[in-house]
Amino acid sequence: MKESPQSLSYSQLGQRASEPVITDLMHRALENSELLSLAAGFTDNITLPVDLVRRALERLGNEMPGAEYLQYGTNRGRAGLLIEVANWLNASESEAAPEPFTAESVFISNGSQQALYLAMQSLCDAGDIILVQQPTYFVFLELCRGLGIRAVSLPALADGGTDFAALSEFFLKLKTEHGAARIKALYLNSYYGNPSSRSVPVEEKRALGRALLDHALHVPVIEDAAYRELWFDHPYPAPSVFSLPEFDSLPRLYLGTFTKPLATGLKVGYGVCSHPEWMGKMLSLKGHQDFGTPNFNQSLIENILAAGEYGPHLERVRANYGEKAKIMGVALEASPLRKLGWSWETPLGGLYYWLRGPEGLDLSIGSAFCEQAVREGVLYVPGDLCVAEGDPKNFARLSFGSLAKEKLAEATERFVRVAVAHG
Amino acid sequence: MKESPQSLSYSQLGQRASEPVITDLMHRALENSELLSLAAGFTDNITLPVDLVRRALERLGNEMPGAEYLQYGTNRGRAGLLIEVANWLNASESEAAPEPFTAESVFISNGSQQALYLAMQSLCDAGDIILVQQPTYFVFLELCRGLGIRAVSLPALADGGTDFAALSEFFLKLKTEHGAARIKALYLNSYYGNPSSRSVPVEEKRALGRALLDHALHVPVIEDAAYRELWFDHPYPAPSVFSLPEFDSLPRLYLGTFTKPLATGLKVGYGVCSHPEWMGKMLSLKGHQDFGTPNFNQSLIENILAAGEYGPHLERVRANYGEKAKIMGVALEASPLRKLGWSWETPLGGLYYWLRGPEGLDLSIGSAFCEQAVREGVLYVPGDLCVAEGDPKNFARLSFGSLAKEKLAEATERFVRVAVAHG
Repeated sequence: MKESPQSLSYSQLGQRASEPVITDLMHRALENSELLSLAAGFTDNITLPVDLVRRALERLGNEMPGAEYLQYGTNRGRAGLLIEVANWLNASESEAAPEPFTAESVFISNGSQQALYLAMQSLCDAGDIILVQQPTYFVFLELCRGLGIRAVSLPALADGGTDFAALSEFFLKLKTEHGAARIKALYLNSYYGNPSSRSVPVEEKRALGRALLDHALHVPVIEDAAYRELWFDHPYPAPSVFSLPEFDSLPRLYLGTFTKPLATGLKVGYGVCSHPEWMGKMLSLKGHQDFGTPNFNQSLIENILAAGEYGPHLERVRANYGEKAKIMGVALEASPLRKLGWSWETPLGGLYYWLRGPEGLDLSIGSAFCEQAVREGVLYVPGDLCVAEGDPKNFARLSFGSLAKEKLAEATERFVRVAVAHG
Repeated sequence: MKESPQSLSYSQLGQRASEPVITDLMHRALENSELLSLAAGFTDNITLPVDLVRRALERLGNEMPGAEYLQYGTNRGRAGLLIEVANWLNASESEAAPEPFTAESVFISNGSQQALYLAMQSLCDAGDIILVQQPTYFVFLELCRGLGIRAVSLPALADGGTDFAALSEFFLKLKTEHGAARIKALYLNSYYGNPSSRSVPVEEKRALGRALLDHALHVPVIEDAAYRELWFDHPYPAPSVFSLPEFDSLPRLYLGTFTKPLATGLKVGYGVCSHPEWMGKMLSLKGHQDFGTPNFNQSLIENILAAGEYGPHLERVRANYGEKAKIMGVALEASPLRKLGWSWETPLGGLYYWLRGPEGLDLSIGSAFCEQAVREGVLYVPGDLCVAEGDPKNFARLSFGSLAKEKLAEATERFVRVAVAHG
């Protein structure tokens, strides 16, 4: 094999690397103002905390004459923000942890995305297995593929809940085929999950914990709560795995974020880890990658939290998304979609409608449906991206997050037109 | 081996992960106000762009009523900032690229640190070799160790320059022992390098390019220019590898940053890559890690650049560090250190003095010298951390970056007292 000088030999990781779908979706949404995007999980510009950030910067200027908020911080995160995060979780109505959350178990990440990456890097070699829900967060699936990790879906009922009747056989088969040691973690998207907007009820969560123990799967449980704050009428009542005794003997990583609920442009997330050694491993990897999330962004958020302005901001955000969910819901219910065999649950929080199309309908990228949607001027996330295996093509994620209210019904109607055309 | 339920099995990467030295140094500096730190590569609080950031935020508020600066951006970076970066490089006095830099070859990273990580991830598997200078950036050496990469120093002269007389034998030996295919890149810290503050003269750079080609090492060249803007009297005259024909046939990655010269708390760096496919691989990995550096930070910096405020800011920064380098230089020259066998070059830019102690003196972490320095109330970076192999113990890096001027002489004198006591 002759090599030209500019040919490059990549690592195994580099060889697997390919353009993430989210990048492409973001580009299409950002670069074409004609298209109405129901695809990207962007937040609504009108909820962005313009005044909060401006006021926080003013206060920082007054309170920190040394301008330390523009200086490097520590790798794990600002001490004050770690405390604010612990306090925030302790104040959560739905938590009932036997011990309060402490700042010592918290670290700050570049959105919760980075924490997911650190968790996977620290736990998994190529060929290892991660248990996921069906459907699950599609960027997490891409991340796993990038690292050579195999994501395997828990058996699921039609409503998205765990099919416990099938679980024992599933675990046995997985252990027999790959060896128990290959199974490295359970990843749960448990509050208004992306893409389904489904939350995991407390009984299901507890039963999952018991099932892991019953099958001697002493693996870390990663609970991704990125959408937890985005409830419409009341917080989802299930506590996190930190408050459920079934998980006491398992290493746990709880991921929260200020990205979706406060400002996607600030990109600050956090992890809470029950296992100090594991947290140390993740922080060591973070030390190599950036040795700390921007201290400026952390300072602003700490200041907003300390000023008590985050709660009132969330009330405005929740009201806005609740209203937008209704707008999309009305447009969908007014359409003939249900009659045509489509089905969906009305979300109680989060940013998404998860639509199941008629059996056999192909909504995947490159399908006639998808191409017609682009021609019709609307983008959605094809559901097959959100499923680890089996490649079901008749699902779509519609986001009501970013589009302005006045365009939301129109975008939904465009999608409906395509669906009706495909009968 | 009995496993307790909370014991965890890590990936190979996780097993290698250990607390980075930089984290520990940062902690000691941040958490003990009694100590005067000449260790951490922090910048000077008085140069932090408080007014620039405040004004930029005001302008953004006026210019972007949609508050898009607080929204998600794209994975590669803000289009406007990519253009500003290309323009900035094209305006550089010391560049003479045959073709101008273009925005298409630029991407934004979380400080240049993340770009280094992405480059290593995309190119190297565990066991691969990266060529480095002696001494070199110690966090890069840690990063390499974390990924299982072997950093190997080019043969060096006493002044830190490449020992070209020894280079052929060095390359032959390396290729024989490990195989040429294992050698994956050359990493050059070429402008006021960390820790030596040495810049690589144009003839040396060109000769390095020729040497790579002569030895059929068609490997990427990574030029880390993190300190390039921090010159005192005039910019270092050597152009980057993008402007030198010897490198035309090699993939090149040039790393710049706004972190040190503008604000460490914003943590925005950039890469310029001559090889689109390689850049695509790095961006794919970035997509998995965070799908974009905070758009807010990028927006602020783009706005500051577009307003023409970065140049005047740099003038203030350069004057300040030039003055501080003099203060430390005066304190060192007034001391008996040279008589005691110490030597150093006076830096012409950057943030560091690189001191060579008498042969046989042990300045490493945990040494009697180091412990006495802590008792005396001063921190430095032991030089052995900055060298890939051979473990020379008689070097120290003293930073004049972060300490206020009035404390700098005092801190230097503390260090001198320890050195005198160790004769």
